[in-house]
Amino acid sequence: MARSYDVAVIGCGAGGYQAAVTAAQCGAKVALIEREGAGGACLDRACVPKKALARVASLLVQTRALVGQGLAGGMRCDIGAVLAHDQDLIADLKRRLPHRLRALGIDLIVGHARLRDPHTIGVTGPQGFARLLARRVILATGARPRPLPACPVDGERVVAANRLIPLLASEPRRLLCIGGGAVAVEAAFLFRTFGSEVTLATRGARLLTRPVVSERAARLLERKLSESGVAILKGVSVASTRIDQDGVTVVFDDGREGRFDRVLVAVGCVARADDIGFRALGVRCDAAGFVATAETLETSVPGIYAVGDMKGGPMTAAAALHDGRIAGENAAQGFARRRNYHQVPLVIDSILPLGVVGLSEDMAERAGFAPEVVYIPYGASAKARVQGASPGFIEIVHDEETGQMLGGCVAGAGADEFVHLLLGACRSRRGLWSLADLDYGHPSYGEDVGAVLGPYLARLVRTQPMVFRPGIYAHAD
Amino acid sequence: MARSYDVAVIGCGAGGYQAAVTAAQCGAKVALIEREGAGGACLDRACVPKKALARVASLLVQTRALVGQGLAGGMRCDIGAVLAHDQDLIADLKRRLPHRLRALGIDLIVGHARLRDPHTIGVTGPQGFARLLARRVILATGARPRPLPACPVDGERVVAANRLIPLLASEPRRLLCIGGGAVAVEAAFLFRTFGSEVTLATRGARLLTRPVVSERAARLLERKLSESGVAILKGVSVASTRIDQDGVTVVFDDGREGRFDRVLVAVGCVARADDIGFRALGVRCDAAGFVATAETLETSVPGIYAVGDMKGGPMTAAAALHDGRIAGENAAQGFARRRNYHQVPLVIDSILPLGVVGLSEDMAERAGFAPEVVYIPYGASAKARVQGASPGFIEIVHDEETGQMLGGCVAGAGADEFVHLLLGACRSRRGLWSLADLDYGHPSYGEDVGAVLGPYLARLVRTQPMVFRPGIYAHAD
Repeated sequence: MARSYDVAVIGCGAGGYQAAVTAAQCGAKVALIEREGAGGACLDRACVPKKALARVASLLVQTRALVGQGLAGGMRCDIGAVLAHDQDLIADLKRRLPHRLRALGIDLIVGHARLRDPHTIGVTGPQGFARLLARRVILATGARPRPLPACPVDGERVVAANRLIPLLASEPRRLLCIGGGAVAVEAAFLFRTFGSEVTLATRGARLLTRPVVSERAARLLERKLSESGVAILKGVSVASTRIDQDGVTVVFDDGREGRFDRVLVAVGCVARADDIGFRALGVRCDAAGFVATAETLETSVPGIYAVGDMKGGPMTAAAALHDGRIAGENAAQGFARRRNYHQVPLVIDSILPLGVVGLSEDMAERAGFAPEVVYIPYGASAKARVQGASPGFIEIVHDEETGQMLGGCVAGAGADEFVHLLLGACRSRRGLWSLADLDYGHPSYGEDVGAVLGPYLARLVRTQPMVFRPGIYAHAD
Repeated sequence: MARSYDVAVIGCGAGGYQAAVTAAQCGAKVALIEREGAGGACLDRACVPKKALARVASLLVQTRALVGQGLAGGMRCDIGAVLAHDQDLIADLKRRLPHRLRALGIDLIVGHARLRDPHTIGVTGPQGFARLLARRVILATGARPRPLPACPVDGERVVAANRLIPLLASEPRRLLCIGGGAVAVEAAFLFRTFGSEVTLATRGARLLTRPVVSERAARLLERKLSESGVAILKGVSVASTRIDQDGVTVVFDDGREGRFDRVLVAVGCVARADDIGFRALGVRCDAAGFVATAETLETSVPGIYAVGDMKGGPMTAAAALHDGRIAGENAAQGFARRRNYHQVPLVIDSILPLGVVGLSEDMAERAGFAPEVVYIPYGASAKARVQGASPGFIEIVHDEETGQMLGGCVAGAGADEFVHLLLGACRSRRGLWSLADLDYGHPSYGEDVGAVLGPYLARLVRTQPMVFRPGIYAHAD
């Protein structure tokens, strides 16, 4: 007999997990179907293990910088031990997931799902075949690495970004990272810090071409990566690749040639080939093959939603979690809440930790604001100086006519949490004031922000009161 | 001829500096008088150098914990180099202060100040004698370490907390820290990590007896300090001390006896003996000798204000900066803004970084709220696990009838900035909701907070809407 659910979620990566949790918290009876066990890319091989690796790398960078300035001795990375410790940690976190799901009354079903009709899912798993009925379905099956025709992966010498961990274990002497996005940058940082010679090749004119990342942030990141010894090639594509017994020869389209032990291809994602049956039901995809969704994350078939990497948009776990909350609530309660990626921080852990949220100056201008950037360099920051985090900076984008906070960027240690404070201000009706009249610990980055805002606010007081323009942030203050 | 000012500030520590800056930003003509050059205790020998030392110590603790789990080799502290690097850094930050003051049009006057009447100050300095006239005066001359009669300082074997840096340079083999507050805890952590055998003796029944620090935080701190090798004696006072050529013998009032190379006395502060003439003008002091102030920070003499350690209250740089903002604005503009230390974070950098703000559960109960504590242990936090920050936790105190956020505590890495996010929520009319509906990076501590609040909010939605009770936080959202 088929089990019946209010909401069935297919895929338990970050987006699917969150969609199931949110739907259950809204009171829905939820099934969560996953073929490999809960966790997804994020927990298995992306965000969480990379955060652990980035922490080890960051400790190495920081302690090395202090040799002669207070620390004596030397540390090096034992990559085998790092990865083993990492795997223990992941295994422990994964063990906790099913308990959490059970506590919320969610049925976690292991197996391959296939949509029969918009309300019927067949699941083939270790326990045999089962048929589920669901009033609404949330798709969350992720994406796969984009292949690069001129540099096909062989899984050994040339690997895709989802094989970062085994690649680390191989300890390449000379590595080529192809790509200029977050994944390539994070990988270049890790391998370089752990001892590889690293070349990063991107066809972009700069690193991190996402418009939310300011020119200043991209430039400083490039400078710090270069100073750490990463060779950066910009504006180049791979023309051809030859794998032989000892390594890989890569020819670039500008005629340069390089010889590497290993190559990491990190040039984004494409849709999965296997659509688990949704296309046949009429779920429309965009030109790139990603599932097309309305702002409510509903697909072209009523009652079927899609979240995370499978629907395109920003491919970060944070965006997938955002999707999960929106789609979970909409599916469970019939709401029509809309996604808004301006509210989702982008965090990149590398030699220059970055936390970015909202609108950059360019984006704000295009959106019709009169943006002004408050630039807070770390050279004068007591906290940054004691942390060895200079050069680095905080940028605050606000509307100079109203003081509405539009976006922010933290480039330096602690960026991953500090960006949340800036996001809170973006969502506050009080804009810059909400940052200016807090009392901060001393010394702290918060204090550095609070200290510079006075003149900007004084000018606003003299002109006009704050007007919060809705539409950018779904504020509620 | 006497120079005339709107506001004269005496003392350029954290509080005086901030008072001068705020008054100048309000448009006042400001004089800032300092006998030793700008900076004060905070920059010279307290917050900033200690933050730098705590960072080195924290790196050592973190890297040592990773030996065998990913790092190989060993680091030790070269205390001479640490202190030299620290002094360079402080010197550079101090060089910047006069420029900042000048940019705001503040006259920095070096010399000893003495009040002649409430509007006249005599300054004796390297340039001779000068007389200043000021419409309002802000006193900011700080405090001095509390002496312990049973353990008098000799400046060599037995020193007060303001001599932490030279004490570090002496690299004691066996150190006794007397006191159980932030200063003693921070010192015990530093000396232990840098290689000393450390005993901490406090007459308190626990560490950190300030009511804003929860029992759970104090207990975990004690456990981690003990595990690091610090011997902790609670409920004891020093009965007698004997200094001889080779060290110090300390007898406690429970009969125990200890032998140490050096002793650090960190048992709080008392008022300075030299009152620079304000008592003669009728400025009243409390029983302990600290200047008595109204909530506006005005003293018993109209037009004379006092900020920071000299007026008692919480003796942290953050509280002094808070005072500086309030008194600077009140003095410059004739406002009557009130101080509110509930809004000022308390940050303690040690083996368990702590950031605390607002009301603890006990305080909230006494204030008439129905407090409920949301406890977020780090064992299940992906970010904490990858950072090696478990055990640790975040506590959120809110009013269970309304969801008003009353206070928070972060016990673990990054506490010094994360506490600002909790403070922002305390000041928001939206209380817990302001934390629950933010999108956080992944993995992050913010995410851990957001993830647990659902059930608390769901219950509130079912009972009654948020009512923000004023009086605790000067909210403006």
